[in-house]
Amino acid sequence: MGEDGMKLGEDTLRISTIYEGRIFRVEQAIVSLPDGNQAYRDVVKHPGAVAVLAWPSPDSIILVRQFRYATGEELWEIPAGKLEPGEDPASCAARELSEEAGFRPQLLKHIYSFYTSPGFSSELLYLYEAKNLISSPSCTDDDEFLEVTAIPLQEAMCWLSQKRIKDAKTIIALLWACQQQMA
Amino acid sequence: MGEDGMKLGEDTLRISTIYEGRIFRVEQAIVSLPDGNQAYRDVVKHPGAVAVLAWPSPDSIILVRQFRYATGEELWEIPAGKLEPGEDPASCAARELSEEAGFRPQLLKHIYSFYTSPGFSSELLYLYEAKNLISSPSCTDDDEFLEVTAIPLQEAMCWLSQKRIKDAKTIIALLWACQQQMA
Repeated sequence: MGEDGMKLGEDTLRISTIYEGRIFRVEQAIVSLPDGNQAYRDVVKHPGAVAVLAWPSPDSIILVRQFRYATGEELWEIPAGKLEPGEDPASCAARELSEEAGFRPQLLKHIYSFYTSPGFSSELLYLYEAKNLISSPSCTDDDEFLEVTAIPLQEAMCWLSQKRIKDAKTIIALLWACQQQMA
Repeated sequence: MGEDGMKLGEDTLRISTIYEGRIFRVEQAIVSLPDGNQAYRDVVKHPGAVAVLAWPSPDSIILVRQFRYATGEELWEIPAGKLEPGEDPASCAARELSEEAGFRPQLLKHIYSFYTSPGFSSELLYLYEAKNLISSPSCTDDDEFLEVTAIPLQEAMCWLSQKRIKDAKTIIALLWACQQQMA
């Protein structure tokens, strides 16, 4: 615990790439700590991602069911995907919504940007709200299998309280939507 | 996009450990897809974590400022930490709150459990609310430097709208707390 304004930063002394994968890179760094000591930091370097709270009607949202290998289970999530190199997050949000759910948004609004797991990952996720949706052909990646549905926000909130929704970005989107409706 | 109830699962054909670190392990798997084709899956295997929305007074919450090497910046977050092997999440929540912020909770309530980044990581985060706090000596890890503060929930919500809070678990805790207060 420190005083307000104390320096908390860490300087990189040495850095090496442990693994270069298709989705992320793993780096190991040796850093100097605020007290002058040294420590190791393992980092997952991720290109960043977007997620979209999309309204096909004034009180329904789009959810996608997908098997997530990393978790070993199927999850219900809002449409989302990784940023391509140099891609603008808003363009990526429109692209992912179109590819996964077959809708192109005429109105996109930024909600929040957040780190999904700042203890070990650089992934920054840009969350958008999409309205005024126009049908467009969907086209998922070759290795992506998913089911798309539109459900009332209130039903999605029931799913959350029943623990049927367990994805961080989706919980943020749902709670934000509820707050907007109550405001 | 598939029909309701379609099989979305993936079967592991081969799995190998790419890296075994202090915080996470990286595995690469070859899986068989629902259509019979094969794909690679890179996974960060994480022990899971807890986070605590703690109320030192009826309208103030505890936030921790910490440099997060993976993100390259200081973040304000609710107290949180990794699960030790075999550790019960509620005990871990009490331990982390005590170590980081110097409070032991007499009342712990589970809010949600969620995957922080299900596209590539197995990390499941257990979020708790802590009330009736008793002071206890704090004691952070050797390589952990942080500043602890208690701020009114409404001020934390201002920080969120000013983009001074950009951590997923903290945003979930704040939005949940607001929803409880409005209910």
